[in-house]
Amino acid sequence: MKKFIQLAIAEAERGLRNGDGGPFGAVIVRAGKIVACVHNEVVKNSDPTAHAEIVAIRAAARKLKKFDLSDCEIYSTCEPCPMCLAAILWARIPRLFFGATRDDAAKIGFDDAKIYDFLAGKISKIPLAKKQVARRECLAPFAKWANLKSKIKY
Amino acid sequence: MKKFIQLAIAEAERGLRNGDGGPFGAVIVRAGKIVACVHNEVVKNSDPTAHAEIVAIRAAARKLKKFDLSDCEIYSTCEPCPMCLAAILWARIPRLFFGATRDDAAKIGFDDAKIYDFLAGKISKIPLAKKQVARRECLAPFAKWANLKSKIKY
Repeated sequence: MKKFIQLAIAEAERGLRNGDGGPFGAVIVRAGKIVACVHNEVVKNSDPTAHAEIVAIRAAARKLKKFDLSDCEIYSTCEPCPMCLAAILWARIPRLFFGATRDDAAKIGFDDAKIYDFLAGKISKIPLAKKQVARRECLAPFAKWANLKSKIKY
Repeated sequence: MKKFIQLAIAEAERGLRNGDGGPFGAVIVRAGKIVACVHNEVVKNSDPTAHAEIVAIRAAARKLKKFDLSDCEIYSTCEPCPMCLAAILWARIPRLFFGATRDDAAKIGFDDAKIYDFLAGKISKIPLAKKQVARRECLAPFAKWANLKSKIKY
């Protein structure tokens, strides 16, 4: 366990040296073997979703050729932000080890804590205007999905 | 506006026909022009993060060669799940139009509402064991980031 979080830290340092993005690393392990060992690539890839955990989940899923990572565990140098935490849940990863906290991330300028507070209903103001449109039409593909015998659930 | 949500619905239908994933589509628009028009690809790409909105954000950011999409708006056939909502916030997209709701998604078997309830503190039980490890060591790259003059913030 100590080995894997240390590898995640080494990735965070590598990303920092390369200017690839924020100082975060993540490792995904399956049956004691590393399947992904990566760092944040938001800047390198011009991809706002390329947090270390998302990059790790995508890499592991690609490598294992499956979207269900329920036989894996994830190590992250920081408590995952809500995007990454939800991604871990969607990937069905059952175990998370993390180092720094959302408040540690906030102290160096990242919005993790703010987004958590918004989702918890602790703050109501976010810079996003939401408007519901065309619900009825959007439900048409939902009804087809519900009736689809061949669907693959995830 | 109506045109863009209709294109998102058409994408949802296309994804459904192809068996690419769940029945969801998303469109990103900048200055009246479409920069991404995509659907959920979780199954097709074996990628648990490939929800329509994430696929759209990644495609738009790649096309525009920037991680800041604050000059864009996003149309989604469904209220974004917490992963996608947080991704929209990280991408700085200021306007969201959506059709169906998290409860509509729950009715056809998706976990959106459950993950929202967990993040809002309404349910405490999720299938994820969390453990904090090596915080002090994980803070070392944070301190370097804080002192880095050349950093690109996102």
